[in-house]
Amino acid sequence: MMKLAEIIAQYVYETDIQKIPKAVVNKGKQCLLDTIGVSIFGQCFRASKIALNLALDMGGKEQSLILGSPNYTNAYWAAFVNGISAHVADFDDSSVDFKGHPSSVLMPAALAAAEIKNVSGIKLLEGFILGNEVGSKLGQVMGWNHYNIGWHGTGTVGTIAASVAAASILDLKPEQIIRTIGIAASSAAGIRQNFGTMTKSFHAGQAAAAGLMAALLAEKGFDASKTALEGDVGFIKVFNGSDTISFLREKLGDNYSIKNLAFKKYPSCAGTHAAVDAALFLKKKYRIEYWQIDAVECAARPNIESILIYNRPQTGLEAKFSMQYCTACALINGKLGIQDFEDTAVQESEVQEFVKKIRFISDPEFEKVAIERNLLAPTRVKIFLKDGQKLEQTVLEADGGPLAPLSWGDLEKKYLECATTVFSPVQAEYVKKTIMDIENLAKIKDLTDQMVVHRKIDQGG
Amino acid sequence: MMKLAEIIAQYVYETDIQKIPKAVVNKGKQCLLDTIGVSIFGQCFRASKIALNLALDMGGKEQSLILGSPNYTNAYWAAFVNGISAHVADFDDSSVDFKGHPSSVLMPAALAAAEIKNVSGIKLLEGFILGNEVGSKLGQVMGWNHYNIGWHGTGTVGTIAASVAAASILDLKPEQIIRTIGIAASSAAGIRQNFGTMTKSFHAGQAAAAGLMAALLAEKGFDASKTALEGDVGFIKVFNGSDTISFLREKLGDNYSIKNLAFKKYPSCAGTHAAVDAALFLKKKYRIEYWQIDAVECAARPNIESILIYNRPQTGLEAKFSMQYCTACALINGKLGIQDFEDTAVQESEVQEFVKKIRFISDPEFEKVAIERNLLAPTRVKIFLKDGQKLEQTVLEADGGPLAPLSWGDLEKKYLECATTVFSPVQAEYVKKTIMDIENLAKIKDLTDQMVVHRKIDQGG
Repeated sequence: MMKLAEIIAQYVYETDIQKIPKAVVNKGKQCLLDTIGVSIFGQCFRASKIALNLALDMGGKEQSLILGSPNYTNAYWAAFVNGISAHVADFDDSSVDFKGHPSSVLMPAALAAAEIKNVSGIKLLEGFILGNEVGSKLGQVMGWNHYNIGWHGTGTVGTIAASVAAASILDLKPEQIIRTIGIAASSAAGIRQNFGTMTKSFHAGQAAAAGLMAALLAEKGFDASKTALEGDVGFIKVFNGSDTISFLREKLGDNYSIKNLAFKKYPSCAGTHAAVDAALFLKKKYRIEYWQIDAVECAARPNIESILIYNRPQTGLEAKFSMQYCTACALINGKLGIQDFEDTAVQESEVQEFVKKIRFISDPEFEKVAIERNLLAPTRVKIFLKDGQKLEQTVLEADGGPLAPLSWGDLEKKYLECATTVFSPVQAEYVKKTIMDIENLAKIKDLTDQMVVHRKIDQGG
Repeated sequence: MMKLAEIIAQYVYETDIQKIPKAVVNKGKQCLLDTIGVSIFGQCFRASKIALNLALDMGGKEQSLILGSPNYTNAYWAAFVNGISAHVADFDDSSVDFKGHPSSVLMPAALAAAEIKNVSGIKLLEGFILGNEVGSKLGQVMGWNHYNIGWHGTGTVGTIAASVAAASILDLKPEQIIRTIGIAASSAAGIRQNFGTMTKSFHAGQAAAAGLMAALLAEKGFDASKTALEGDVGFIKVFNGSDTISFLREKLGDNYSIKNLAFKKYPSCAGTHAAVDAALFLKKKYRIEYWQIDAVECAARPNIESILIYNRPQTGLEAKFSMQYCTACALINGKLGIQDFEDTAVQESEVQEFVKKIRFISDPEFEKVAIERNLLAPTRVKIFLKDGQKLEQTVLEADGGPLAPLSWGDLEKKYLECATTVFSPVQAEYVKKTIMDIENLAKIKDLTDQMVVHRKIDQGG
């Protein structure tokens, strides 16, 4: 029987973007646009600035652009910094299949690989979509067990996915792709204990850079085990995957998983989004002001409780992992935006007081619903008003997910809001148009050269 | 109660080499000399050449020397390439406490950190020894369970150890050391399925580079969880460690683990060494020629069988993980040296034929003995001669281990044999003397400048 890495290699080597359904290609372009926007915005965060600073300290050939900056550096460091800036705002896309955030890993690895060989836009897009598909099917094999034990799929599954995207774009032979996957299986890393700190976004940067490096080493003849995925002490077993390895074998390239990927309307952990949608819905429908509220109860599946570990957040990064904070903002302000995650906003006494009224409970019923219907975080919000009224709303899936996808218009709006934090409006518009028409881009450098920021950004840690 | 990372940070910050016993400091110097020798020799291997090639492709500031080469590059790439070359020959030291190969990870990370700030020899040695101590005590907390499940301690525990060595040498504050450890906990990687391939040595390079990077990021203010080691989804739980966390808390800096570290007489997996010692002993004592032998039986603890997975090796890297091959060489040639692991030597029909006569069996009795006495691989070799005689020898611990340590003389001889594969004899001698007297070295660059190889080495993959 063929080894898993052989099956993946054959699939990646033989699949041409012409064979991929139009809707999948379209979703891939949406992911690219959304992730580049988020990454430009993410460059304003301290984690990204520190990473950029380190990359500049280390130096390297000018191969690839650090997004949202004036700097080119080598492909490895660019992938690393861009991965951090793509993920740090927690505004990037997420996928239940992948068990993490595919595009914040795939985009930086794919872009850096594309810049090394200055390939066409279509080549970049193809590798990006293939990386997503391999990562998503592998994420399904790993299952929730992998995540619940403490692995951050963005870092673990992400490293393999990024390596596949890079291998595809570098045009590696099947034998080299097999080795790429083997090396990547030994680079996969990232534990959930670091959620709510800069190291969470570091996972995306590390996975992007490591995936790219695996492909570059394999290209030069570095070798690895062919059974690094399914072997007795291989990736799937060691990282607590499930036993249904045949799934990957059978489903790869079948009903592309990228279609299930969710875009974010709010810059916080995806586990908070259904609660925010529910809170906004109730606030609007019943015209509630927050001072009318006595208590709020948010109920979600148990594993969401283990992710949203900050009941009383004090920093912006912690607040992104707080059901209480995100729901409080929605009920106070009627929206949840990027300003709400500045440290000073989080520390405001008004919201800190209100947060105390919000309780998060685990409801095992939602675990069943989530598994059955492949949902991330179905959530029920109950609001107890001071006048005795009880209001309740259940949201199975937040806006942006496959059941309630964002339109191109929604995504353009979000992209422009993010990108213009650093880009000029004209530059943001040009980049948007180029990505929306990326099939017709002959050389990737024609895009990246337009993304250079011509003013020196503040690099202070 | 103090968090584990706080305890480690305090220990590292407060421990001065003057407080460390003389025998420990001496062992540290032996480790440095041995590892540098092995690393110079390791530069001749294909894995190292490919890594060097990649580093040169990527470019970087000229901060740190790639050992055995004429090239300086940035500290990150130097640590990466030097880690690979230190481990690729499987001739570097090993430690039961650490659950892996401490110095092939620690030396590159410590040297690169030392070069960044051009610190003194004593500062380098101090960080190197502290990194070993933290890694060794953490390795004991992780236990054999960690290793048996499939993790390669060199990569996992190694990343934390390397980060501590680098943090010490960079003179980080306790708060920064805590963050360093948190970041490193999310970089730890490496699965045993890649044993017998170039990716095994990649684990050492990756751990060295990642550990260094964690310290450099923390120095600039990057943050991470303070409970990344002992948290519910932290390193110790996620990587299948044991529950005796208190051990690390209590034993750190107590009876330094580096004393238990074993040097290698043979360039193969440490699990083969007791068998080779036993075979050499029997061959010499009874003057056996291999054609007199009908069959050989090697018995060791079960987990050694899961490491030595190549019963019929075809390449040098595979042969290093073959009980049968290593024992066969010992019985045919009366020695086991670096030449025996060239691909052509492995493929010779004479040894390939003889390998078939050697059987490896697991003996659970040895598991008990090993655990009780903290031994790696007690092994019994039985030789059945064609004339009906049975010969038998049990070796509890191979030469080079703490029960039968190598002398400075033995180590010098090994170092010179390794180093002169690339260094001139005069250069090898100079470097040896400098390392043996490293306490009196004012600036580390006075050593590294002497290690530059002035001829361009063959970089062909």
